Amino acid sequence: MVGGGPGAFIGGVHRIAARLDDRYELVAGALASDPDRARAGATALGIAPDRAYGSYQEMAARERARPDRIEAVSIVTPNHQHHGPAKLFLESGFHVICDKPLTTNLADALDLAETVRRTGLVFGLTHNYTGYPLVREARALVAGGALGRIRVVQVEFAQEWLTEGLEETGQKQAVWRTDPAQSGPAGCLGDIATHAYQLVRFVTGLGCEAIAADLSTFVPGRRLDDNVNMLLRLSQGAKGMLWACQVAPGNENNLRLRVYGERAGLDWRQEDPNDLWLAPHGGPTRLSRRAGAGVGPSAAHATRIPAGHPEGYLEAFAQLYTDLAERIVAHRERRSPDPASTLVPGVEDGVEGVRFMEAALKSSRRDAEWTSLGTT
Amino acid sequence: MVGGGPGAFIGGVHRIAARLDDRYELVAGALASDPDRARAGATALGIAPDRAYGSYQEMAARERARPDRIEAVSIVTPNHQHHGPAKLFLESGFHVICDKPLTTNLADALDLAETVRRTGLVFGLTHNYTGYPLVREARALVAGGALGRIRVVQVEFAQEWLTEGLEETGQKQAVWRTDPAQSGPAGCLGDIATHAYQLVRFVTGLGCEAIAADLSTFVPGRRLDDNVNMLLRLSQGAKGMLWACQVAPGNENNLRLRVYGERAGLDWRQEDPNDLWLAPHGGPTRLSRRAGAGVGPSAAHATRIPAGHPEGYLEAFAQLYTDLAERIVAHRERRSPDPASTLVPGVEDGVEGVRFMEAALKSSRRDAEWTSLGTT
Amino acid sequence: MVGGGPGAFIGGVHRIAARLDDRYELVAGALASDPDRARAGATALGIAPDRAYGSYQEMAARERARPDRIEAVSIVTPNHQHHGPAKLFLESGFHVICDKPLTTNLADALDLAETVRRTGLVFGLTHNYTGYPLVREARALVAGGALGRIRVVQVEFAQEWLTEGLEETGQKQAVWRTDPAQSGPAGCLGDIATHAYQLVRFVTGLGCEAIAADLSTFVPGRRLDDNVNMLLRLSQGAKGMLWACQVAPGNENNLRLRVYGERAGLDWRQEDPNDLWLAPHGGPTRLSRRAGAGVGPSAAHATRIPAGHPEGYLEAFAQLYTDLAERIVAHRERRSPDPASTLVPGVEDGVEGVRFMEAALKSSRRDAEWTSLGTT
Amino acid sequence: MVGGGPGAFIGGVHRIAARLDDRYELVAGALASDPDRARAGATALGIAPDRAYGSYQEMAARERARPDRIEAVSIVTPNHQHHGPAKLFLESGFHVICDKPLTTNLADALDLAETVRRTGLVFGLTHNYTGYPLVREARALVAGGALGRIRVVQVEFAQEWLTEGLEETGQKQAVWRTDPAQSGPAGCLGDIATHAYQLVRFVTGLGCEAIAADLSTFVPGRRLDDNVNMLLRLSQGAKGMLWACQVAPGNENNLRLRVYGERAGLDWRQEDPNDLWLAPHGGPTRLSRRAGAGVGPSAAHATRIPAGHPEGYLEAFAQLYTDLAERIVAHRERRSPDPASTLVPGVEDGVEGVRFMEAALKSSRRDAEWTSLGTT
Repeated sequence: MVGGGPGAFIGGVHRIAARLDDRYELVAGALASDPDRARAGATALGIAPDRAYGSYQEMAARERARPDRIEAVSIVTPNHQHHGPAKLFLESGFHVICDKPLTTNLADALDLAETVRRTGLVFGLTHNYTGYPLVREARALVAGGALGRIRVVQVEFAQEWLTEGLEETGQKQAVWRTDPAQSGPAGCLGDIATHAYQLVRFVTGLGCEAIAADLSTFVPGRRLDDNVNMLLRLSQGAKGMLWACQVAPGNENNLRLRVYGERAGLDWRQEDPNDLWLAPHGGPTRLSRRAGAGVGPSAAHATRIPAGHPEGYLEAFAQLYTDLAERIVAHRERRSPDPASTLVPGVEDGVEGVRFMEAALKSSRRDAEWTSLGTT
Repeated sequence: MVGGGPGAFIGGVHRIAARLDDRYELVAGALASDPDRARAGATALGIAPDRAYGSYQEMAARERARPDRIEAVSIVTPNHQHHGPAKLFLESGFHVICDKPLTTNLADALDLAETVRRTGLVFGLTHNYTGYPLVREARALVAGGALGRIRVVQVEFAQEWLTEGLEETGQKQAVWRTDPAQSGPAGCLGDIATHAYQLVRFVTGLGCEAIAADLSTFVPGRRLDDNVNMLLRLSQGAKGMLWACQVAPGNENNLRLRVYGERAGLDWRQEDPNDLWLAPHGGPTRLSRRAGAGVGPSAAHATRIPAGHPEGYLEAFAQLYTDLAERIVAHRERRSPDPASTLVPGVEDGVEGVRFMEAALKSSRRDAEWTSLGTT
Repeated sequence: MVGGGPGAFIGGVHRIAARLDDRYELVAGALASDPDRARAGATALGIAPDRAYGSYQEMAARERARPDRIEAVSIVTPNHQHHGPAKLFLESGFHVICDKPLTTNLADALDLAETVRRTGLVFGLTHNYTGYPLVREARALVAGGALGRIRVVQVEFAQEWLTEGLEETGQKQAVWRTDPAQSGPAGCLGDIATHAYQLVRFVTGLGCEAIAADLSTFVPGRRLDDNVNMLLRLSQGAKGMLWACQVAPGNENNLRLRVYGERAGLDWRQEDPNDLWLAPHGGPTRLSRRAGAGVGPSAAHATRIPAGHPEGYLEAFAQLYTDLAERIVAHRERRSPDPASTLVPGVEDGVEGVRFMEAALKSSRRDAEWTSLGTT
Repeated sequence: MVGGGPGAFIGGVHRIAARLDDRYELVAGALASDPDRARAGATALGIAPDRAYGSYQEMAARERARPDRIEAVSIVTPNHQHHGPAKLFLESGFHVICDKPLTTNLADALDLAETVRRTGLVFGLTHNYTGYPLVREARALVAGGALGRIRVVQVEFAQEWLTEGLEETGQKQAVWRTDPAQSGPAGCLGDIATHAYQLVRFVTGLGCEAIAADLSTFVPGRRLDDNVNMLLRLSQGAKGMLWACQVAPGNENNLRLRVYGERAGLDWRQEDPNDLWLAPHGGPTRLSRRAGAGVGPSAAHATRIPAGHPEGYLEAFAQLYTDLAERIVAHRERRSPDPASTLVPGVEDGVEGVRFMEAALKSSRRDAEWTSLGTT
């Protein structure tokens, strides 16, 4: 693991996620940018002293030289520190699991994509919400034609935690997520709007032709955006709206996706992740439950326990790790992985996310002018 | 009553609304554009034959001449038939209760506004959702500072009933609401987006500086828009999004307003109108119930029965009639009306609604360019 | 109308309910036990002075003698004053609409039932929750076999309004409803448990073989029960539980019925009356909405406006009046009423309700011993 | 681990729960009653061959002799196989984590309690629902007086999975849970009603003076009860109802507890475990969220991630393991454990659960006669 020393939110999440299905063992780490803190943190987590590294460069070099070298590395540093270690570990022959957004600029993103292609290694980007069983069910429903041609997509991701200037209190999460030097030029946009956008792509399979974005910073003194209002023009004539906000009291982590097609609509909310609503036009709305009656194999693949025993965020996150474990083993065994394990977002999704951020920033600077993502 | 013959949806609603609190008696009508159907319809509703008129012109002229003349008239015709009768009845000395939108173009709207000012008569526009007790509570909460300065507004009004080409089956509601000759140039925009916009204004008290609208028509052969995606720039720096849709399976009449300020957020849904959620930043979210503990006088004014006995659409609609009755009586008695009765939208709100429609049409034609409503 | 002078809760509700569908006109009344208050109250409601009576006896006698006599009378007095006026008006040839519970003892109930049979007049008992469209849908689903043989019934009716000794403050509703002289020997049991029990019978069609009841009075000084815990043995081997409570903070008027059969379960809540949940075993749960897709004719009969425009308590109450109007007109016209109008509970349901109360009181006195209702 | 070979539901859950917070390592097991299956299963889970035992007796004897012996054992066998291994491992000096119900008869339960007392070892009973953060919050609210004196308790645990004769298909879970030889004399009663009863005790702190139980078996051919209707008389004058059912279509694992006191009511549902509703009498209902604003330290102790990132069943289960780990370490270090870790139900709770089952069986045989649990 690179980054994620004691106290970091997402590092701990990655470790639980890796452990939950018993497919990984944490044996080496460079957990902080300061060498002493890095080593102390690693030791506190039970990593052997000789694999508690002071920097990711040291870790890559020394692991590469070990007979019992790691197979994969998780990169859970702030955004501006994704590209460096990801590239180095790939070049050193390790599979990489990287937190999102991929990078803070498109050049770095394209460079990583090229590196992944060249090395042929596994690269997973932890857009963790795609690990929820009912998100996979939603994807399967759309792919299977249950909605017909898609017309309208509504996605939102609202939080409340930055309603006040929390970064001024020194709260670690708030500090780096509102700091352009660590987060890059996108605040709320990079932190959560990218999740929302990836979720749209994952479930609908649609591309995005153009966006019109209106970014705002409401909290005085804040240096990055904390609200994103956006119109979407998706492929195949679909239209969408995306709202991401970190100053919305009453919303903890309220990611919600609604998709409406010619034949049906669907609705899923991250805070009630065990419920999926499907409304066929002209019939009663149906509530599908994780592991419940009528739910298909792609959801069943991604769950552990019977219906009514709620799974949550950690299980969805773990699903990405578990799917990537299958891909890593398949790579080692020179076989094809179980197809159900191939849905984890990868480096190309990361490139698309960076294109999305750059287009949004450009559109907002131009007064919400329609802006292409440059790929279509 | 003008319009609303047997079979019309909204005419029947207006009649129940007028009757519910026992403040009106239906004694005269010109209920259809065809004179024979108009008279037959009126008789069927128990109107005396000599007051079952063949046209609104006849009704205005003959009622004016009666000693027991009506005091007020309800106009519930399709949109293109609001201006004519509204103006004539005002000129004839009658108070007017008119369905929304006010007119199909701004010139007519301004003309009506001038007529109302000149005659000094009562004019109510039935933006019925403003009659819900908890909508009035929400307005009072914002006005009282519970939210602090407003930052973000999210409003949506989603329906499913036009998912297919219902107008091709001859269904009466679908036919006129998708016919430019009867509805004017705005489809979904005029039918429901105007309600959503008025609700924003009613609750927040904010003006609108500019909108960026992306209108779509998804159903093949439909002549008016059936989906409205819109960004809002409100006064005092607030930002908003408005979504109105009539092709969203699973949504019956899903009007929802969320408002987020520096200190709290609020959330209200028309389909659960007896619940209002207030989330103060840093504390648990509170659920206020119509007529329940902690709900203030403006909501209490607009309800009839104890908490837990749900009120709905008809009661909210009736509230407008009841408030207007107080204003009509006050006008007759040459006194000030009870202030709680003065919240019913009027002709100026109607003008604003028409400006909103015209700006949205213009913006959408110009590829969602930011467009001013022309008032600020 | 007998009883229900200004200030009474249920009298006002009956008047709105009678008016809502325009099938009744209020022309005569004896609205209070005190003659002067009775007459003043009637006049205040717009009743002509010569029909503003000082007592129900006067009203029955004088109305009987008028050529324009009333057709039906609503009795909305406290429980102990149902039998007297109901019997007298029936004997005088008037149809009767009576609030529940029918009477405060079985002898009176049986006497009324005999009177109704003898006179052949229409008698409606306002168990108003049976007027909700989706309660009628639930009944139709059970009758149509959607649930299969019924196994388990769970019904509850919880309120919070008597959590403290409200009767000591003089609050009118609390005073009479906790006074044995006006309510009879059953408090919460008569006030709301009877509604719950009637709802079970209405929806399931099952009889009740025995009950085991544990009544409690929690508020110090209160003279009637304020909590009812009960086990039910229903016909055909079904088992049930019934909970009624008036000291449950957070519950306003929380009547809920769940029925589970061999093939499916259903769930309805009065506070969300526009939703009905049907869970077929082995498939996704389906949400039916009032007036929505897939809802049958008995529900359609009992609604006025499209799906998504919520109806509530007053509309359900009005449905009873409207159905009774059809039965009264059919009686007048010596024809059979529309079958859809015949579901309103009648005097036999009232007798059953009194049996239920008496059995519950007896069981509770005997330490929750199983007690038959005496009919099966 | 004893029991829980590949394919068992609860064994896998225990393993994830033990692993999630990284406080346990699985190193030895006797995973099935058949020695060969036991050894194969252990090996499949990565246990070293020399610690993959053929029986729990072998495991206890050989682990006792190892220098690197286990510290604690999890017993996840069917109910009738709890007493034997639990006693043996305690006698052999190992801490024990045992699934519920403790035993299938009171004598065994009392014997285990005596053994725990005598050995002084840690004994945890996995009433896993007590591990939810908001269940702990509910307990703290009651203990802190937020509800005042408790009057009414409503608890229910409804499932649908045994609506049909699933045991006849050979489904493993259904087979043993409906088999008196493996489950003991209580079916639904032992499987889930005991959880409901323990939850009442955990949250309210009240004892139970007597119960009146009506047990039913609805599915033809089933040998144990599948529905439990029960009245409760709790200490301090509180009354309760308990419903447990395994034939209720639409209910997956619907455990719900409502508690009403003089000052407030609370409501928690296992299927939405991140929400806790508190309704102070006379004020708006408040929704507390796991890890959200206003939630106290006992809940904070039992959670891992920020509000809005849902935790579920596995995390609650893990909490028991994690709390027991602290107690095991404290035992090893001869110090007092962190008080927040001492809430896990223990052997005395298990004895109380067995008393509850025996009283319920006796009451039901006597036609729901009030029956004491024999302790008060």
